[in-house]
Amino acid sequence: MAETLGYDVSEAASGRVVVTAMPNAAHLNPAGTVHGGLAATMLDTCMGLAIHSTLEKGIGSTTLEFKISLLRPITPETGLIKAEGVVLICGRRVGTAEGRITDQQGRLLAHGTTTCLIFPT
Amino acid sequence: MAETLGYDVSEAASGRVVVTAMPNAAHLNPAGTVHGGLAATMLDTCMGLAIHSTLEKGIGSTTLEFKISLLRPITPETGLIKAEGVVLICGRRVGTAEGRITDQQGRLLAHGTTTCLIFPT
Amino acid sequence: MAETLGYDVSEAASGRVVVTAMPNAAHLNPAGTVHGGLAATMLDTCMGLAIHSTLEKGIGSTTLEFKISLLRPITPETGLIKAEGVVLICGRRVGTAEGRITDQQGRLLAHGTTTCLIFPT
Amino acid sequence: MAETLGYDVSEAASGRVVVTAMPNAAHLNPAGTVHGGLAATMLDTCMGLAIHSTLEKGIGSTTLEFKISLLRPITPETGLIKAEGVVLICGRRVGTAEGRITDQQGRLLAHGTTTCLIFPT
Repeated sequence: MAETLGYDVSEAASGRVVVTAMPNAAHLNPAGTVHGGLAATMLDTCMGLAIHSTLEKGIGSTTLEFKISLLRPITPETGLIKAEGVVLICGRRVGTAEGRITDQQGRLLAHGTTTCLIFPT
Repeated sequence: MAETLGYDVSEAASGRVVVTAMPNAAHLNPAGTVHGGLAATMLDTCMGLAIHSTLEKGIGSTTLEFKISLLRPITPETGLIKAEGVVLICGRRVGTAEGRITDQQGRLLAHGTTTCLIFPT
Repeated sequence: MAETLGYDVSEAASGRVVVTAMPNAAHLNPAGTVHGGLAATMLDTCMGLAIHSTLEKGIGSTTLEFKISLLRPITPETGLIKAEGVVLICGRRVGTAEGRITDQQGRLLAHGTTTCLIFPT
Repeated sequence: MAETLGYDVSEAASGRVVVTAMPNAAHLNPAGTVHGGLAATMLDTCMGLAIHSTLEKGIGSTTLEFKISLLRPITPETGLIKAEGVVLICGRRVGTAEGRITDQQGRLLAHGTTTCLIFPT
């Protein structure tokens, strides 16, 4: 999926992960804007990785649900976009994170929140 | 995106649209399950098209937000999956829809809801 | 809270629970419609109880998150409203449910989904 | 509802509104924690008011949907809690806001996001 959708993990710290992508013609829906699936994939990824980054070895996580809000249109003209996931809380059984997609001017394009299950692997 | 993610619109009526896809290795995340982005893309598509199917000519719609719940793992072994979007309500300014992804045995794999803005084009 | 908001549990089966309430002046916000908190409370209750109804003795559940969509205005003139929660899936660690509020004519007023954590008590 | 649930609007600026409440026995569910309806009501209120605070005279708003995540238990022992709503974006037709409930130590207890419809009154 990373290859298909063309995003990269550009920063990763404990509880915070950034992924970037360059929207292109392959992401377009018939209306000429980028499909919501790109924002969803980037947000799911950065939020899930942010939670994963806080876990010790032998502990895994999986997405239970996420909600995303599409705030401004994303088009190929938008240029490089950045999705930043930040952990809100992470316990032994559940983690919750928030994510934001911004353009290079720092304008907020999309917002998301997720709930992940934490479990021993 | 349709080509990238490989889904097809298989049924469309007023207020109800079905899209199908065959999960494959290109959709995998490192854990060996299909990335939540596939479910998100299919649900966003079938729910958005269900709303769109109720609109008269000259009226358009765009997704404001959606939430999806991932209920069972989707893997390449899952086989063909079906995403069905159904309108809950659609007025002059806003439409709301629900979506369900099922496998060929009818088991529920993912669930979603969306809010779309309706506007003259 | 049940007393404060005045709802009753009117039906309960394994995986399905109905609560009813009569919206009144105490539920109003300044715009003259019933506060979204009433719909949220009724949906959280019926969905959480639906999940709880499927659990064996010694197993508890708690709400992790819910989303609600307010589809039609609820006013004191709406009369008795019914919130029905139905389990979508319930495993050993997580349960997901859907809820619908309808009026006495069966019109859909609000919709919700929830994720609950399941744990030994 | 304000009287029933006992919250106060303690701060209000353009795009940011804070409401406070003291959880008490009337808000309890049978498990001894405060019903999710209190968090939902406070978040719906502070987020909706934050959006409303940015609108000119003659323009109104109504909640289309919200999602809330319950991150830590709220009990009568929690003491005074604060719900802060902040606008993420607000246009001519739609506004989106985020909300956070914290205790007096600044710990995050609940998080929410909402979509509101904007319209001439």
